[in-house]
Amino acid sequence: MYGFTTTLSGVSFDEAIAQTTQALKAEGFGVLSDINVQAAMKDKLGEDMPPYRILGACNPPLAFQALQAEPDIGLLLPCNVIVREVSSHEIVVGFLDPQVMVGLVGGAGVKSVADEAEQRLRRVCTKLGGHPVSV
Amino acid sequence: MYGFTTTLSGVSFDEAIAQTTQALKAEGFGVLSDINVQAAMKDKLGEDMPPYRILGACNPPLAFQALQAEPDIGLLLPCNVIVREVSSHEIVVGFLDPQVMVGLVGGAGVKSVADEAEQRLRRVCTKLGGHPVSV
Repeated sequence: MYGFTTTLSGVSFDEAIAQTTQALKAEGFGVLSDINVQAAMKDKLGEDMPPYRILGACNPPLAFQALQAEPDIGLLLPCNVIVREVSSHEIVVGFLDPQVMVGLVGGAGVKSVADEAEQRLRRVCTKLGGHPVSV
Repeated sequence: MYGFTTTLSGVSFDEAIAQTTQALKAEGFGVLSDINVQAAMKDKLGEDMPPYRILGACNPPLAFQALQAEPDIGLLLPCNVIVREVSSHEIVVGFLDPQVMVGLVGGAGVKSVADEAEQRLRRVCTKLGGHPVSV
């Protein structure tokens, strides 16, 4: 288990990105990076794939706490959120489970940050599309 | 264990970024995202911290193979490389160990990609500063 997802139906890819960004913002997460995977694969390899973006979501107070607890934890930040099209008007939104940090890094300081981040991201997931599905 | 690091001495932070980017390029990794953590923490929280960047390193053929094997693996991509100042002219460069993907996701397709990515990133680390230290 390394994340949880939900599937949005009847929305365009761009609408899914907008809804996800807005729901993240409501839980205090800004988007610090935004990688267009589809464009990168086309540009670098000439390969076609469905729309796929990786958003780097960051809740600044939680990130700061995590970095104070463990300076190298930037290796696991920001918290990735993927938005990918699986069929016309069916979009999967997935969230890296912050508990991954706990399993890999450990420590009480990291655990309290991960618990808080996980609760917030699960609320984002639920708000977007219902009960999170684990991946 | 979730990554490996090396320490560069006698170089400026900007030189460390340039050397890291160049060494990544020589192993086929482009930088798809670049988060200035120091600036983000100052901007969002008013907190001061030493220079700290998170580079999102991506080897396009390996990333494409990983996505074909496991569509949700974007949750663990790109491969984070941190560059952080620990003291004047002493810079830590750290690499997320691609084997983290294997532990979390599993599967033969992911394993072969992770093995290849790990070998390349360890060569980058060695080229920059000597024997990698695990974190």
